[in-house]
Amino acid sequence: MLKQTWLTGITTSGTPHLGNYVGAIRPSVDASHDPERSGFYFLADYHALIKNQDPAMLRQSRQEISAAWLALGLNTERATFYRQSDIPEIMEMAWMLTCMTAKGLLNRAHAYKASVQDNVDNGAADPDKGITMGLFNYPVLMSADILIFKATHVPVGRDQTQHLEMARDIAQRFNHHYGDHLVLPQAVVDEHASVLAGLDGRKMSKSYGNTIPLFETAKKLRKSIMKIKTNSQEPGEPKDPEDNTVFEIYRAFATDEQVQVMRQAYADGIGWGDAKQQLFELVDGVLDEPRKRYDELMANPAQIDAVLALGAEKARDLSQPMLAELRRAVGVA
Amino acid sequence: MLKQTWLTGITTSGTPHLGNYVGAIRPSVDASHDPERSGFYFLADYHALIKNQDPAMLRQSRQEISAAWLALGLNTERATFYRQSDIPEIMEMAWMLTCMTAKGLLNRAHAYKASVQDNVDNGAADPDKGITMGLFNYPVLMSADILIFKATHVPVGRDQTQHLEMARDIAQRFNHHYGDHLVLPQAVVDEHASVLAGLDGRKMSKSYGNTIPLFETAKKLRKSIMKIKTNSQEPGEPKDPEDNTVFEIYRAFATDEQVQVMRQAYADGIGWGDAKQQLFELVDGVLDEPRKRYDELMANPAQIDAVLALGAEKARDLSQPMLAELRRAVGVA
Repeated sequence: MLKQTWLTGITTSGTPHLGNYVGAIRPSVDASHDPERSGFYFLADYHALIKNQDPAMLRQSRQEISAAWLALGLNTERATFYRQSDIPEIMEMAWMLTCMTAKGLLNRAHAYKASVQDNVDNGAADPDKGITMGLFNYPVLMSADILIFKATHVPVGRDQTQHLEMARDIAQRFNHHYGDHLVLPQAVVDEHASVLAGLDGRKMSKSYGNTIPLFETAKKLRKSIMKIKTNSQEPGEPKDPEDNTVFEIYRAFATDEQVQVMRQAYADGIGWGDAKQQLFELVDGVLDEPRKRYDELMANPAQIDAVLALGAEKARDLSQPMLAELRRAVGVA
Repeated sequence: MLKQTWLTGITTSGTPHLGNYVGAIRPSVDASHDPERSGFYFLADYHALIKNQDPAMLRQSRQEISAAWLALGLNTERATFYRQSDIPEIMEMAWMLTCMTAKGLLNRAHAYKASVQDNVDNGAADPDKGITMGLFNYPVLMSADILIFKATHVPVGRDQTQHLEMARDIAQRFNHHYGDHLVLPQAVVDEHASVLAGLDGRKMSKSYGNTIPLFETAKKLRKSIMKIKTNSQEPGEPKDPEDNTVFEIYRAFATDEQVQVMRQAYADGIGWGDAKQQLFELVDGVLDEPRKRYDELMANPAQIDAVLALGAEKARDLSQPMLAELRRAVGVA
């Protein structure tokens, strides 16, 4: 057993874009090669049901995201890569935790409270209007995701730290009542997490419609990059690399040396067209090999399924005995 | 496929008493022999976790209740008799339903509202004080219990009809969104359900501490019956059979002919001691054979487990393909 067990949930909604790559996929893929860690990476498809109730889109997104992570080199030998919905033990454990969770705890969840506030602001008669039990229960299911694999470290965005606190609260209450079965996880917030700007300069995000898809043809990638919004400075005018999207994306993909050279080019007045062309060439170079693997995987869904089936088997080798232990603890076995 | 599928949940808390027998076990056991029905009978042990968080008591109760139903002749050849916790598909389906359930629906559940009212009445600062998510979510899990086996008829007490309405609501929303996968169940309220009086004349109930256990030795049974509260009428005085517990229990176990004879004995002034002795002999006669089977089963838990394992197998032959269908419908498969 390695000392640290890291667990990362992967949202299966939308098509992966450059922002996902830089902010989440690349650091996670790097971590999957770390011999000091036991790593769990799962496609959170049952969580996705909360917001995504279009079966075809859910399936498509899951396939694209699995293919992306695999194409980009997730180490599935060392790490455990699986679909949440392939691990029924999570759902069973979630019920045990449900019975150990105070309703008041979930009343205070930020995501739920924000939805209620929206209703209040919009003058809805029922503050719970449009809110499903999926949204309300989400932190309990997330706790089961984490606790069933005894994860010690969970990388999260700042907005998710409350959910980790809840997982700890629930685990503590369970342990207090039924004995010491659960490991208390800690949140790992990467304060320097890379946030990439999108076509319009705002954070690259599906909800802004300003994304550059991670895997499209070189031709389309070039076209996307050419659409990045810039100022109206002419070629020859010195440009400030610090406040523009083209340079920001370049820096996210380049070596330190390449960044230095490009910085000089900006000072020397490189034209936007040229800067974008260089950005395209850089990104295209980094993604060229992965793109081939991605296309291959997307053309062979059975290959993805086989990897996920192996991952599920590895995961269940742990979740099954853990659930058996918990069933004995609560008295249903 | 039979046209009607009846499903009965059995609470696994406490030790079965004469009131359980007359009100629930006997009619259910009778129904289990009905060739026109497909019957599902399950030990609701995961529901029990909501209130019973003592693992040893939960185990003990489950064993006693299984043994009681089997000893009293539940037809496990025809019906399907299983433990809720042996059917993981129920938990997985419950999550799908959770994502299709409006929180507002559960806000209006009677059991939850009653707990909130208690808090308000007691001046608690938090109206959700002491309320767990188990209590709040209960109607969703109950919906999964029912819907996964496509039950058409669910016998319930009047206080449970709202939960059946909720199961129908949730099923309708699911069908509306994902297509016609779920069967809408109907509640069957037995308006003439037998409610037996306990030692003190109030309804026989664990919470009143006035029960007569169903399976105790003949000697103890006699002792319990001798404790039934009566009025102070002397032997020889004519007695009113309509307003006393001894006669009420007698009637619940006797044939029509026996009832007539006893009615005459009351008119003729039978003494309470004699009336109780006759009640004891009647009940002891009815329970004598089942008691032997019960003791045998309690001494051989493996025998109970074997029956429940077979029941789980039969149940999963249906729940597994049903879950597979639902997984495809929502897009996780």
